[in-house]
Amino acid sequence: MSKAIIHHHSGEFAAFYGEMRGKLRYLFQTEGMTLAAPGSGTYGVEMAIYSFFSAGDSVVVVSNGKFSTRWAAYLRSRNVFVEDLVIPWGEVPDPVRVAEACDRIQARGLVVTHCETSTAALLDLETIAWRAREACPDLLIVADTITTTGAVPMYADAWGIDVAVVASQKALMSPAGVVAYALSERALRYFTPSDAADFAHLANHVRAAANDRSPFTPPLTLFYAVDAALDLVAAEGLPAIWNRVHQAAHTFRDGFVALGGKVFGESPSDSLSAVYFEEKNLDGLREKLKSKHQITLSGGQDSLKGKIMRISHMGLTDARLMLAVLEAIKSEL
Amino acid sequence: MSKAIIHHHSGEFAAFYGEMRGKLRYLFQTEGMTLAAPGSGTYGVEMAIYSFFSAGDSVVVVSNGKFSTRWAAYLRSRNVFVEDLVIPWGEVPDPVRVAEACDRIQARGLVVTHCETSTAALLDLETIAWRAREACPDLLIVADTITTTGAVPMYADAWGIDVAVVASQKALMSPAGVVAYALSERALRYFTPSDAADFAHLANHVRAAANDRSPFTPPLTLFYAVDAALDLVAAEGLPAIWNRVHQAAHTFRDGFVALGGKVFGESPSDSLSAVYFEEKNLDGLREKLKSKHQITLSGGQDSLKGKIMRISHMGLTDARLMLAVLEAIKSEL
Repeated sequence: MSKAIIHHHSGEFAAFYGEMRGKLRYLFQTEGMTLAAPGSGTYGVEMAIYSFFSAGDSVVVVSNGKFSTRWAAYLRSRNVFVEDLVIPWGEVPDPVRVAEACDRIQARGLVVTHCETSTAALLDLETIAWRAREACPDLLIVADTITTTGAVPMYADAWGIDVAVVASQKALMSPAGVVAYALSERALRYFTPSDAADFAHLANHVRAAANDRSPFTPPLTLFYAVDAALDLVAAEGLPAIWNRVHQAAHTFRDGFVALGGKVFGESPSDSLSAVYFEEKNLDGLREKLKSKHQITLSGGQDSLKGKIMRISHMGLTDARLMLAVLEAIKSEL
Repeated sequence: MSKAIIHHHSGEFAAFYGEMRGKLRYLFQTEGMTLAAPGSGTYGVEMAIYSFFSAGDSVVVVSNGKFSTRWAAYLRSRNVFVEDLVIPWGEVPDPVRVAEACDRIQARGLVVTHCETSTAALLDLETIAWRAREACPDLLIVADTITTTGAVPMYADAWGIDVAVVASQKALMSPAGVVAYALSERALRYFTPSDAADFAHLANHVRAAANDRSPFTPPLTLFYAVDAALDLVAAEGLPAIWNRVHQAAHTFRDGFVALGGKVFGESPSDSLSAVYFEEKNLDGLREKLKSKHQITLSGGQDSLKGKIMRISHMGLTDARLMLAVLEAIKSEL
């Protein structure tokens, strides 16, 4: 991040960004368009919704947590007709039901959250995408893969994901402030009209990225960080990373259950664990872990406040580190 | 920027952000609401337009360069009725004409670009705001102060600016990726409705900032950079900075004219100079300055391509540095 700033309209920037875009293709497992833009994860998903769906469109959303519910609310605020499959937090949808919903409203789009970070629930994105595409061949499938891409298997092309979104501060181990996209050929044809230099419209970003340029001044310093992280990803290799994250997740959960705890939800992602003890003050425990052990676990959000604790397995973690966390938890029980 | 990342929902973040927001009040010379968000300058201005104006509103825009023309186009793309005062690039508007236009359409808003970075033209924001407010007392005045705040005098409260926008990579000497706002009491009453967690809607940012929080994961690393820059601003003091920038600008222009060059436009800002030689290949000269002297001057944009060169006087520059640049230019004539 301390590399010299270069002008984003220069050939040096284009050379750098072109290479970075190539590394993003590996990350997303795509041969299609990739690009990076400023923002948080919410910015990233909402930019996609803003760019592809407008008033009167019909879109299916699966709402099973804080973030997926946010996408449904944002779609509604844009006067999109939303077929909202609401299921309890921590549960995941039956792919057949998702496909039926797409068929029922002859959906233009489907917005799904691969891993609901609020509950750790991982849905079966591959089967959902395949079933939904069977029902509606022209469907635009938008996947929030913010806490999956780079942590657990996610194959944008092979699964037929049209728009996949990731954020710099999760598996990419970088400071927050950058989102990145993988966009299919179909996605490039589905943009809503955008004649102005509209910052939130991905069509403007795609037009520039096609020439390895950024349409607006990019957060270059953070691009440098993401680029370095993508080098780490390439060096370790995705299968090795997925395996390391898997070992970390299972080591943590097995150990947590051995301490008398429970794992929340029916389909936990390897990217993070949501866990609880039935008869314990979780916020008090988190406070002790932070002050005495310098270990930060997140609490639950909204309806899950005080009911779960969450720990990340993304980025530079492994099973050994999880054993140390379990040791600290044990010492505070 | 290498300070440890803290969670943006933590009390530590609120303490940091509260102090940073205070430093922004000094920068903008306001007692009102200040906040920071991810983005480039274009993001910053367009987020303001998005948050305050919707279809059917009447807004006056002064278009005298690349960026102000962009705001007009963006407003039109949102179906806002735009009274567009188009004047030649490099010129600035008569405040009386701006006020007349506001009165004529009984404008809800006025969008002005304090310094048009494409031409260096500085408009008389104080008089324009005063005259326009006289004509329309309830007017919402949005000022793109991206290359003025922190470089030349800009007093948000005293001049009655409702929305002032700045970007991290200009006078704040930081990497690109953060925009900051000063918002008046009137601005807080003028938001268009926003029920969803809409990333682009400043109402969501204001609601969070009122408690020194960020509504979405902030680019904290870049906030740290801006915060450090705001400390430099406070230590030197705005009047001293404005004077230093003024000396740099005038030293450069006087020297450039002495070399046979000309200053573009009728009201150049101290924040940057747009200059040219009548009978010279400016792009060739810029190329030589870069390759032989490591001095980067920008070219003209759009209709001014090849016709001007631009040099910044914002941030860590002074008259002595400008003398060195003049020396280099002289050696290549």
